This record gives sequence, structure tokens and C-alpha cells, in this order.
Amino acid sequence: MRKTIKNLRKIVAEGGVARVMAAHDPLSAILVEEAGFDGIWASGFEYSAAMGLADVSLVSMTEHLTNMRNMADRTSLPIIADVDTGYGNAINVLHTVTQYEAGGAAAVVIEDKMFPKVTSLIEGGRQDLVSIAEFQGKIEAAVSAREDPEFLIIARTEALIAGLGEEEALARARAYEASGADMILIHSKQKTPDEIESFINKWEGNTPIVIVPTAYPQMTEARAKSLNKIGVLIYGNHAVRAAVTGMKQVFSQIINDGGIQNADREIVPVSEIFRLQQMEEVKANEKRFLR
Amino acid sequence: MRKTIKNLRKIVAEGGVARVMAAHDPLSAILVEEAGFDGIWASGFEYSAAMGLADVSLVSMTEHLTNMRNMADRTSLPIIADVDTGYGNAINVLHTVTQYEAGGAAAVVIEDKMFPKVTSLIEGGRQDLVSIAEFQGKIEAAVSAREDPEFLIIARTEALIAGLGEEEALARARAYEASGADMILIHSKQKTPDEIESFINKWEGNTPIVIVPTAYPQMTEARAKSLNKIGVLIYGNHAVRAAVTGMKQVFSQIINDGGIQNADREIVPVSEIFRLQQMEEVKANEKRFLR
Amino acid sequence: MRKTIKNLRKIVAEGGVARVMAAHDPLSAILVEEAGFDGIWASGFEYSAAMGLADVSLVSMTEHLTNMRNMADRTSLPIIADVDTGYGNAINVLHTVTQYEAGGAAAVVIEDKMFPKVTSLIEGGRQDLVSIAEFQGKIEAAVSAREDPEFLIIARTEALIAGLGEEEALARARAYEASGADMILIHSKQKTPDEIESFINKWEGNTPIVIVPTAYPQMTEARAKSLNKIGVLIYGNHAVRAAVTGMKQVFSQIINDGGIQNADREIVPVSEIFRLQQMEEVKANEKRFLR
Amino acid sequence: MRKTIKNLRKIVAEGGVARVMAAHDPLSAILVEEAGFDGIWASGFEYSAAMGLADVSLVSMTEHLTNMRNMADRTSLPIIADVDTGYGNAINVLHTVTQYEAGGAAAVVIEDKMFPKVTSLIEGGRQDLVSIAEFQGKIEAAVSAREDPEFLIIARTEALIAGLGEEEALARARAYEASGADMILIHSKQKTPDEIESFINKWEGNTPIVIVPTAYPQMTEARAKSLNKIGVLIYGNHAVRAAVTGMKQVFSQIINDGGIQNADREIVPVSEIFRLQQMEEVKANEKRFLR
Repeated sequence: MRKTIKNLRKIVAEGGVARVMAAHDPLSAILVEEAGFDGIWASGFEYSAAMGLADVSLVSMTEHLTNMRNMADRTSLPIIADVDTGYGNAINVLHTVTQYEAGGAAAVVIEDKMFPKVTSLIEGGRQDLVSIAEFQGKIEAAVSAREDPEFLIIARTEALIAGLGEEEALARARAYEASGADMILIHSKQKTPDEIESFINKWEGNTPIVIVPTAYPQMTEARAKSLNKIGVLIYGNHAVRAAVTGMKQVFSQIINDGGIQNADREIVPVSEIFRLQQMEEVKANEKRFLR
Repeated sequence: MRKTIKNLRKIVAEGGVARVMAAHDPLSAILVEEAGFDGIWASGFEYSAAMGLADVSLVSMTEHLTNMRNMADRTSLPIIADVDTGYGNAINVLHTVTQYEAGGAAAVVIEDKMFPKVTSLIEGGRQDLVSIAEFQGKIEAAVSAREDPEFLIIARTEALIAGLGEEEALARARAYEASGADMILIHSKQKTPDEIESFINKWEGNTPIVIVPTAYPQMTEARAKSLNKIGVLIYGNHAVRAAVTGMKQVFSQIINDGGIQNADREIVPVSEIFRLQQMEEVKANEKRFLR
Repeated sequence: MRKTIKNLRKIVAEGGVARVMAAHDPLSAILVEEAGFDGIWASGFEYSAAMGLADVSLVSMTEHLTNMRNMADRTSLPIIADVDTGYGNAINVLHTVTQYEAGGAAAVVIEDKMFPKVTSLIEGGRQDLVSIAEFQGKIEAAVSAREDPEFLIIARTEALIAGLGEEEALARARAYEASGADMILIHSKQKTPDEIESFINKWEGNTPIVIVPTAYPQMTEARAKSLNKIGVLIYGNHAVRAAVTGMKQVFSQIINDGGIQNADREIVPVSEIFRLQQMEEVKANEKRFLR
Repeated sequence: MRKTIKNLRKIVAEGGVARVMAAHDPLSAILVEEAGFDGIWASGFEYSAAMGLADVSLVSMTEHLTNMRNMADRTSLPIIADVDTGYGNAINVLHTVTQYEAGGAAAVVIEDKMFPKVTSLIEGGRQDLVSIAEFQGKIEAAVSAREDPEFLIIARTEALIAGLGEEEALARARAYEASGADMILIHSKQKTPDEIESFINKWEGNTPIVIVPTAYPQMTEARAKSLNKIGVLIYGNHAVRAAVTGMKQVFSQIINDGGIQNADREIVPVSEIFRLQQMEEVKANEKRFLR
């Protein structure tokens, strides 16, 4: 497994809550690292959006994996890879886990939806789940495929999103833990933390819980920590939303101004991009190696 | 050649100045189109930056072409592809032009630097140019390789950037026009438009001029138009700078707040990303075709 | 749609049987063209095999499409792309058809298996089919997504392979024709042509039939022509089998000989590879464009 | 560095001559392993040929690296990656070495030609070399970029191919050894081993010699071993030549026969392809994990 400057298992084992921010390309991943987060969420939603595609299994594993590998190559944080359903059945999961581990991920999140999927947060989207037994087979396949036992298999249940109720969500979480999942991601699109907090209070398993509080932002890091069972907080789509916000403002200003004469005031200078690209290191290497 | 809703040759022929904004992925390209620009600059600098790499020929043609093709697939504007030196010599240029035209570009810009290159705007970077004769061979190769005569071959001279002076820049521009270039891109990193305006005033060729006024933002669209010879204004790196600006602000806020409780106020909602991904169309298609 | 030197619709309309050979990379596609076949089968089975992977939906659309695009770029024959199930449901099919048409294919074959699939010829493989209604939705999606009406949508039914019987196969073929399929591919793994001939004799639709006679090689081109309803004969895996045969022999000889001293007698000279790579054209272009 | 079942350094240290066969895709790499060779040559020439392109720097690093990574994923032999000039200058070499080591290669061969290059064996091809000093910088860059000191940096000199004579070849080999190269590949296109044997007899360095005896097949493994300084024998293009030979024969037979009725006798059965794809393992995994 690729060496990283932080370790998600260790943060969680020491009682911390790891803060993990979405990224959609190596540049956003670099910014996640610079900002002080503990990990990078190689988000399927963000990557689909960056590709200009709906998050409904149009982006292929090859594309998402290549992006993840590029992020791993240019950052030092652990990366949690969002592999949706594992790109098919348990046979696909074997291939997927092998590829993501070799590519530098620290963890994969596999969800119990049917393939092809619809994104969790859209209103009125289809949200069919596979059976518990079928998904246990996928988790067992994932566990058997990893080379390094430190590599994390995170099982994500969409039971609450699919409207199947808390009992079903708990039953699924227990079953996935029994099949070897290292953490359970429980997803909710309720606008308050109630649903999640109720689930967590009833959770008696040993594996840490992962949440994605996009819909219920009242769930701060402090509040998550106080619940004692949350190991990882994933901020699922703020990078791409921030990038879109920045670009829309500046594009509209340039169109309105009929030029870039006022744009420089609003955005980082070109030299900041050079810094992020490590141009200084390139220049030092040119001095050292070019003759 | 791929059909587009605007046509760069036509805009220029009718005396207009086409406003072309950089993009680094399909999402930024979609925003360029929505903002009202006339074309998309498939920038090598922006794409390198998005990949977290210095703009020194580390990104391969395969990667840049794939990105350009994805942008072409999800937008309707003409795309000017920044192919640096053409990824090698005249033989590489033949391959490059064929691939970019088939991939959906409306134009390529080929520059007269040596391969591998250093980005034009960095201070103290090497800026070696190939000979005029060698570059004429590359332009002739490009012209011979295009299938559709409407596809634009834009010759970019770095003579001013390299400090070779206006005479050399004009000589190169004339030679490239003689070899069949459809437009001449003249690059400058002076902090005012003087150098460019002087060049343009002495330019007696028939091909339109393309400029990239990053360093001299006083060159508004109105001022460019008044010079009568500028056909295209390329805004070379504002998309990636705006995206970085947006992400840095929000990442830092979330780290400082210990949560996303205040982030929503600053950035577009998730629904705006759904809109850009055309989720409504997907839902309509699900109704129409899923059974 | 990409221009090709042969046209599958035309061959079939004129009463011919198009002979289409599998390829797994651009080189094998070039050899298919040189040998005199009428089209190239961008086979999922061959491509999976070339990738060293089982043909169970492990290869992604991105990989298969890239290979198909490279074949299209370097040959002049029409390409029939084997897109398995369309890489998911009807929504995926919309994306798939758009991408393959833009990438240069002349046709796609979409099959009525469940995703992820198991290859048709393996003994004891799972062979679940989607419902007729669901697959009709996929065919209608494919038809609606193509830009050029000349692009062929070929519906492939695995009803015989799945052991569902001739009646089901005919019912599916009729339903797929009703949904707009341009041709019907009927697959069989019986060791004689009886099953296929019986099906064809009962087929009263207007769309031509496509067959893949790997298992029943007695079905020659002459015999297929005499049945009057077969439009296309696909030779599904002979390229990769021939390549493996050639490599196994020579590798074993070199190992046994302790050197390559006898290998040249068995294989084409390096100059033949140069010819296939068009080195003469490169040298002519170097003379013309390099200075 | 990826673990392999053989180790090139060890074979050489124990006085052996490692036999390394070219491959152009994962399937040919699997066959190289099964045949009993000691390593896989991720050949630029073979890969270009498989892509249907001339071997003149048209294939990008991304494409060649992806192919090498896929070969590494599906085999257990050490892979020597042919990275031509390193895809540019010393700065590109830093990137190239990092990527190939992370991708699973055991070694890279970097050659002292100018970029873009022409293949070594073509008659009348341009064969310009970079200066000794410039190439030393590239070797030093390569050495500094590797993570695992076991990763091999092999410097390839084209001095004999370029007609610069034995003295120049020896001077270059010495200089490259001084800069840290682990092995020296000396290339020759003479039709007998004389030129190479003379070079080897005069070689007084400590680093082992690598040769590619395509043009002088009299150089058997026994003869190479008797020279005492050769560590690796690379068979540079026999895989693609064997594959082409196999496909040409079978394609022509099928065209002449008007069908595949006689083809099965000449080529391996489909079941042999299933075996190479490890379908048995897939079926076992389906039993184990699918529910």
C-alpha cells in the first residue's frame, strides 16, 4: 500500500474523527492536502460532474481509477476511493479492489445499490438495493482481494436513502460487518442529523461509522466526535461546488467587462498556479540535470 | 469537422473579435459555453495544472486529446486546441492534427518552441525556438494533414517571449503565413499592450492575429477590435485560477469552522451541479427508455 | 459517420453476405483489411483476451472504445463494435452509441444478457437475459442516440445460448425488429448449423440475420448465402487464436534452441512489420516536411 | 517495487544470462511467462506496431505505460520497459522513471537518441544522438528518481547504429556507467556478432552488457554466456512477428476457403483462450462470491 503522511485507521483508533474532503482532479486533491484535511475523497459524483456527465454509471472504472492514480501520485494523503457498486458484481469487485489498491488508494467504499446506479441525493431517483446476501458476497470478495490488510474496505448502505427504514439499515450494517467490512458508511439525505444520530445510537457493532453530512451540515466535527462512534466525516461535493462558484463569477465578470481588466483582483495570480505545479522544483531540476 | 453553434472563421470574417476562454475539463468547458464566450481554449497550461503537473511537456498528447474530446462531446462551442509544439517534429504534427480534428477540435495552435517546452510566462524559463524553416515544415505538415479546409491551423510564435525582438517576430509571422497558417498567435509577457500593439501596427499580412492578454489585461475586447487586425482573444488561464480561488476559500472556511455548517452560503447548491450534469434529461430518458 | 471503403448495408442490400473478421488491436485490424474481409469485428472477447482478462465485463467501455477508435483511425473497413450489453441499462446505451458512432464505428451489437455478463461459449456459464420489454427500451435508446441513420443498430439475442428455445428466440427477434433494430444477431453454440438454420427458416422478419459460426464451422459463406436471409457472417475469435498459435510456436522454439538462430525461418521478417507500420510513408514525409 | 518470481539482478549476479522476450499486450506477456523466459521486454517497437503506428515517437508515454501496467498486473516476470529517450529531456525522465516504477516495471531502458526518434533497424533512418553530457544528465535524473535501489536503470547507446564507431560507443558506455547506469545496452544492426563481440572484448567496465541480437541471430545464449560480460539478451520483436505470421496464414486460409471449416485445424481452440484468460478461476470465484 502506498505510504501516506496520515493514516485513517490510526486516526480512528486514537479516537479521532478523520476529515476527508472530495476532490475531482489532482489539483483539487493538492488543495485538499494543503488545507489540512486528513484524507481525500475520490468522489464518483465530483468526477462525473467534472466530466460533464450525470452520476449514473456513465464514467467507467478506467476513467475514475486513472484520476485516482493521478491524485495518489501528486499528494501524500490517504485516498478513499468511491467505487460505487464496485462496477458490477462480486467478480468485478475482485478486479476493482486489486486495481485501486495497486493504484495507491488507502480505502474503497462499495455501496449496496444495483448497478447501474442513480446518485443518492437526487429527488425521485431509483434507489434499488441488492440483497443482503449478494452484498455480503461482494464485501467478502473485496476483503479477499486486498493485498495489504491495512487497506480499508468500507461498506456503504443506502437503506435509509432507499426508504427501507432504520431496522433494515442496522441489519445491513451488522451483516456487512460480519462479512469483514472495516467501516460502515451510512448515508442519509434528511435535512437534519436526527436520522443519522438515531442510527448511531442504536449501532452496537465494533466497526467505526462513516458519514457524509452534505444534507445535514449541522453535523459538525465536534458533534460527530461527541457521538463516539463516527470515525470518518466525508465532505462529499464541496470542491466541485466551490470550483463552479469561482468560475461562474469570474466568467460572468469578464463577459460583462468585455475583458479581463478587473479579473485579476478576484482570483489568485498565475504565480499561485506555478507554485501548485511545483515550477520551482522543475527549475531546480533543470539546473541539476539539463546540460 | 464537428458542428458547433458558433464559427470562429465566420466571426473573424465579419470583423468580430472572438472571445475564447480556457477550460481544463468538460465541466469548465460547459461553464465557458453558458457564460457566453465564443470558443473554448483547450489549454495545455490549464490541463497540466489540473493534473497537478508543471507545464513542461509532462502531460502526454493522449491525456490532453482525451480531455479535449470529452469537452467536445459535452459542449457546442468551437474548441481551439493548444497542442504546444505538436508533440515533437513535423511527423508528430501530422499525427496530432489528424487526431485533434477527428476528436472534435475546430483549430490547433502550434508553437515554434523546441520540444520539450517550458511554459511561456515563467520567469527565467528556457525559451529556445526552432528555426523558421523547421517550423514552416511543421505548418505545412499541419495544413496537409487536415481533412476539412475549415479546420484552422494557428501558428504561434514565441519570438517576443524569447527576447528575439519585433523584427524576428514579424519575419516569423510572415513565413508562417506563407506556409499556410490561417492565423498567427503572437505572444507577449510584457505588462502593457505596447509590444503587441507595435507588432500589430507593423503587421501587413492578411491572416488575423490571435493574442493572449494575460500579462496585459488593459487589452480589452473594445481595444482589440479597434486595432482591426485581431481576430481572436484568448483568456488563457482564468478558469483554473478561479477554480483554485473558490476551492481555497471554502476549504479554509470548512477547516476553520470544523464543519460545513457555513459553507452552503458561499457556494452553489448541489442542485446546480445536477443541472450542469443534465440530471433532468437523464430522468426524462429513464422514463422513456427504462422498463 | 466515418467514411469506409466498403458499406455493410449496401453489401447486404445487394444480396451479399458480408464477411467480418475479429480484431483485437489496430495491427490485427490492418491484417483483416489486407486479407480482403468486408468488415472488422471489434470483439469484446478478443479484446478481453488481449488484455489477459476473462470476458466478464472487466474491460471497461473506455478501454474497448479506445481500441475501436484506434482501429478506425488506421483502417478503411467498416467496424462492427461489440458493446456487450451496452455497458449497463438504456441510459448507458445512449452514452455508448453516441461514443462509438463518434469514434468511427459503423455498427454496434447490443445483446440481451444481464450486466455483468459471462462469455457465451463457456460451458456452465450463467446466461441470464433481461426481459423483452427492457431490451426493447435499450434498442429504442440506441436508435434515438445515433446521429447518422446509416449507423447500424444490431440486436443480439442469446435466447438459444440460454436454453430458452426457438420460440423465445423468434419472439425476441421480432420484438427487437419492432423496436428498430437494423439487423438481428442470433447466437448458437450448437456444434452443427441445424439450430441456426431452423431459426432462419422460421424467421419472417425483414431485417437481415447476423451469425457467428464459431461452434458450427460447416456454415460456409456459400451455405450462408443459400439461406437468403443472412447478411453478415462474423468470424468471432480467429485472430486472437491465430496470434496465440503463432507466438506459442516461436516462443517454444526459441526456448528450446537457446536462441533465435532458427526463428527467422518461421516468422515474417522485421521489414514486414515496417511495411505494416507504413514506415515508407513516414520516410517520405520526413523528406517532405523535416528541415 | 513490484514483486516478481524472477530477479534480473540476481540472475546476472550469479553469472547467468537473462532471456527476455518482447511483448506487446498482456496476452503476449502471459505467453512469454508460460514459455519460460526470464523477463518481459515492454517493447516500444512492438507496441507501436500493435497500434498500427510507425515507431517514431507517435505512441505516447500514457499509452505505453498503460500497456506496461496491464502486463505487470497479469504476469509475474520482471518487466524491462523500453522508454525510448525517456519521452523528452531529463525533466521528462524524472517523471517517466517515477511512473514506470510505480506502474510495476523492474527496469527502464533509456537511449541516447534525440527525441523524437526513428526506429534503430530501419535503413536510412535519421539517427542523431544527444551529447554525452546531456545524456549523463538524463541517467543521473533517472537514478535520482527511482524509489527502490533495486530498480534497474539501463543506458542504451545507439553509437554503433549511428555509425559513430567503437571508440565513441565505448566512451559513451563508460560515461553512462559513471553516471550511475546499472547496465549498458549496446545496439548493433550488423548482420554478424563481430561488431558486438569486439565491443564486448574491449569493455572494461563493471556493469553488465545487454544486447538485442535481432540482426545477428548467431548470437545464441550459449555464445553470449561464453563472452562473460553479457547479463541480458533481449529478443526484441519476435512476438509481434509471430502473431502477424499466425494471423496472415489463417486469414488467408479463411478467405480462400470461403469459411472457417478448415481453420480449427491450424489454430488453438477457444478453450485455450479461456485458459489463458483464467476462466476457471472466474468460475470458482462466481461459486464462492455470487449469491
